[in-house]
Amino acid sequence: MSWFFDALTRLPEPDAGSAAAVRARADDILRPAGALARLDELAVFVAGWQRTSTPRIERPTGLIFAADHGVAASGDVSAYPTAVTAAMLDAFRQQKATISALARSVGATVTAVDVGVGVPTGDIRTGAAMTPERFDEIVAAAVAAVDSLDTDLLVIGEMGIGNTTVAAAVAAALLGGAGATWVGRGTGVDDDGLARKAAAVDTAVARLTAAGVTDPIEILREVGGAELVAMAAACVAARLRSIPVVLDGYVSTAAMLPLHAVSPTALDHCIVGHCSAEPGHRLILDRLGLSPLLDLGMRLGEASGAMVAVPLIRMACAAVVEVPTFGEWFA
Amino acid sequence: MSWFFDALTRLPEPDAGSAAAVRARADDILRPAGALARLDELAVFVAGWQRTSTPRIERPTGLIFAADHGVAASGDVSAYPTAVTAAMLDAFRQQKATISALARSVGATVTAVDVGVGVPTGDIRTGAAMTPERFDEIVAAAVAAVDSLDTDLLVIGEMGIGNTTVAAAVAAALLGGAGATWVGRGTGVDDDGLARKAAAVDTAVARLTAAGVTDPIEILREVGGAELVAMAAACVAARLRSIPVVLDGYVSTAAMLPLHAVSPTALDHCIVGHCSAEPGHRLILDRLGLSPLLDLGMRLGEASGAMVAVPLIRMACAAVVEVPTFGEWFA
Repeated sequence: MSWFFDALTRLPEPDAGSAAAVRARADDILRPAGALARLDELAVFVAGWQRTSTPRIERPTGLIFAADHGVAASGDVSAYPTAVTAAMLDAFRQQKATISALARSVGATVTAVDVGVGVPTGDIRTGAAMTPERFDEIVAAAVAAVDSLDTDLLVIGEMGIGNTTVAAAVAAALLGGAGATWVGRGTGVDDDGLARKAAAVDTAVARLTAAGVTDPIEILREVGGAELVAMAAACVAARLRSIPVVLDGYVSTAAMLPLHAVSPTALDHCIVGHCSAEPGHRLILDRLGLSPLLDLGMRLGEASGAMVAVPLIRMACAAVVEVPTFGEWFA
Repeated sequence: MSWFFDALTRLPEPDAGSAAAVRARADDILRPAGALARLDELAVFVAGWQRTSTPRIERPTGLIFAADHGVAASGDVSAYPTAVTAAMLDAFRQQKATISALARSVGATVTAVDVGVGVPTGDIRTGAAMTPERFDEIVAAAVAAVDSLDTDLLVIGEMGIGNTTVAAAVAAALLGGAGATWVGRGTGVDDDGLARKAAAVDTAVARLTAAGVTDPIEILREVGGAELVAMAAACVAARLRSIPVVLDGYVSTAAMLPLHAVSPTALDHCIVGHCSAEPGHRLILDRLGLSPLLDLGMRLGEASGAMVAVPLIRMACAAVVEVPTFGEWFA
């Protein structure tokens, strides 16, 4: 837990000179000023975090954390049995999942990290999801995973049956509102399942309130899940290395709420690839002031909504690096 | 002109069997049903037009038509002089333009076709943009350009200083409404320029009305432009070969209005890549019932808004072709 508090006090800022150089280039490039709009902003963003005036996306990497959840073991909150988490981890590792196909199409690699598949966290309705010791182990695994990568754009995602429920609990605990505000159909629960998800969130948050837990990182440990902890740690680890990050859907964005609560600039190195059909995602993005690049109705997780945005970010960089300025063209 | 009337009576439909096969596969694939939403719809669309149950985007091709416009010669309607059209055609051919960089990033090729650079059409305020003979020559050039390509996804775009004004004239003539409804700032005109654009459209449409011109293809000849005619012809030529098409922004979509007016299903093989910041684009898309894949505020033309959508379409295909079904995975 102390890793976050230490890391969040020493987050690097983007390189202002690189960002300014790309902005100046974009303003004088061989097209009407501002014609690429958001793409130019993306290029400036990448330049700042890659700390170069020639930003490029050459080694995009997906990092997927997978884990199981005690709250899902009862079958109350998901349309799928928890065994599906392990099956999907296998599919990731055999490069057979949807994210594998998307990543191949984009020229990205994908690494799946098991942070608790078959080893579910505690049921958040009745107790802490994990001990401080397990929390610290997960953080260490996530930081090690990021530090082992050679990447210029990190795509963070997850897999874990039941994890939209714990994501909703984190959101409700940090942003307020009833469980019903924060839950959605996830992989496809019916109305009764949706009601059970809302009730589970309300119960978990009431437990936190009764215990007087208000620290954002402690909330993540209490009502989050292993892959949420890992994603938050990976996001901070990337920031420490000044690697830009693409966040995925509801669960991955909810996992970042504790970081933002501790330090409002903690997500400055993050882009959100796609707005999930899970209704809580839009609510969180509005609260964070983040605008997704895409809105195609996807609701898969697996980093898929982030991966589909990677080509846009790559093109944005190419459109400033590879196109001459008016001065260069007419020289 | 007669080419369009003949071609529009013999447009092929998509292959229903291929589309149904991909839809069935998407419904049983290794992810929650419907989780990729619009991406699955794209894969079904491509399957139908490519006439295969294994749709793929391997040879995407941008086709850009460039031309000059009499209405722009006076300097009334554009922030740039007409000489910029020729300069940009040169940039396309040297692979130095923004679209060149975007296409390289995506693995697409780009062909630029001169259909009247330095040979402006007539000023639409005072007479027909082109004679029937020139119209037919442009159509023949566009059809030949499409027929020379080996592509599985055609991206259609344009370059031509002044062409947002003639696009607005086509839209106003076919969809009604004052010029002010249909003009925008294009490459960046000021308020006076915007007023001159609206006035030019109103004058051109009044001329059409006075002459009693109501035939959609004749309207295109009268108040359109050479690259608009070429784009419309290229779109139909692609349809005749059952090649799916990605349309770009305001000008390229306005060019398709006459096709839709003649045959409401004429654009069934088209996707719109991106909604332009040019306000008339959204209005046209709503009238055509087309939903753009992206909305990033771009307003460049050059097929750029279409090209940025190509990776999404490619990923959509990969996500059904390369991912096992539940049956295959658990066999």
